[in-house]
Amino acid sequence: MQLYIGNKNYSTWSLRAWLILEKNSIPFEEIKLPLDTEVFYERLKGITPSLKVPTLVDQNTAVWDSLAICEYINDAYLSGKAWPEQTLVKAKARAIACEMHSGFNALRNEMPMNIRAKRRLNISEACKKDIARIEQIWTEQKAQFADNGGWLFGQWSIADAMFAPVVLRFKTYGIELNSQANIYMDKVCSCPALKKWIDAALLEHDIVAIDEAGEEIVKE
Amino acid sequence: MQLYIGNKNYSTWSLRAWLILEKNSIPFEEIKLPLDTEVFYERLKGITPSLKVPTLVDQNTAVWDSLAICEYINDAYLSGKAWPEQTLVKAKARAIACEMHSGFNALRNEMPMNIRAKRRLNISEACKKDIARIEQIWTEQKAQFADNGGWLFGQWSIADAMFAPVVLRFKTYGIELNSQANIYMDKVCSCPALKKWIDAALLEHDIVAIDEAGEEIVKE
Repeated sequence: MQLYIGNKNYSTWSLRAWLILEKNSIPFEEIKLPLDTEVFYERLKGITPSLKVPTLVDQNTAVWDSLAICEYINDAYLSGKAWPEQTLVKAKARAIACEMHSGFNALRNEMPMNIRAKRRLNISEACKKDIARIEQIWTEQKAQFADNGGWLFGQWSIADAMFAPVVLRFKTYGIELNSQANIYMDKVCSCPALKKWIDAALLEHDIVAIDEAGEEIVKE
Repeated sequence: MQLYIGNKNYSTWSLRAWLILEKNSIPFEEIKLPLDTEVFYERLKGITPSLKVPTLVDQNTAVWDSLAICEYINDAYLSGKAWPEQTLVKAKARAIACEMHSGFNALRNEMPMNIRAKRRLNISEACKKDIARIEQIWTEQKAQFADNGGWLFGQWSIADAMFAPVVLRFKTYGIELNSQANIYMDKVCSCPALKKWIDAALLEHDIVAIDEAGEEIVKE
């Protein structure tokens, strides 16, 4: 099984799909392609019609989109345990994951993930609204599942994978949240799988192309 | 079970959630709230923290987001039959549904659903790319499942619900597609559940507010 991802410093959607595999110790081959380069599109052309990362290839079939990959891994390798068991609780977890998957556009535009950076931003009202809604989700879930694992639904779920890159953005841009949301952020940051991703992102170079000999050409 | 939706003429995400219920003859109470009005936010405030439609309420629990609602209905009322049965085919159906759920932004911005209108547009390159990708999806699926029901994966699935509003947009804006994609569009338009939605949209007035006596105030 191969997972095609983008730069670890920038590619939030790649992180989500990578996390469900790594967190659950599912063996896979990681193939990292530098975003916005010719080689990125060249390599993906024969593999996924969407030309996007993340793309998972299992049994010669491509599964693209972070949420679809998480659902597939959950179905095929985790016997469903990456969602809460009870149908209506699972529905709420999916609602929260889907809200992230299709929304929070202001936050996504204004606060790109950049693990190696630390900076302050002037953020728009729309972005403040996104942050407040995310803080509300984390706080509400924390109140409901506080003593039962520390994740949004107690045990780790795909909803946590969805919000991991948001935690990293809030760290980069110094966003201040309430104490319960901070406890959740600490929980996310203490996850060994996420730490592994962060460590790799910190050492990563911004590759702008790959030359004919297969050598990476990095940004100065 | 209640489904909160927006105006039938405009609310694409409402249509997706409504369609899985109506198409599968699942009884529900439809509560329509006029988009962008005070009454919209007033009514949703106590019901869903996302303040968005569609929102489904079942057993006193709110499930928001069109895809999460479809997944819930599939789990709780359809024994999983709204996705293809085989795990990897299901994964591809989810990939296609998720691609719609989180993407095609140019198309969504430039070609809003407006069932009552017929017009031509000058569309951007980004929007043309979205249209070409959607045509590719429909054509590829049609080739693979041609003689087996006529839907994207043969039998009707959540992937078809996701693309129904796109078909209506293409009709409104007179977008020309290849013959296989046209056959799929005809299939979608011949669906009795969708026809019911369209008929209601054609008769709908644009409500701008609801007065103290509960009377709808419509746009002149």
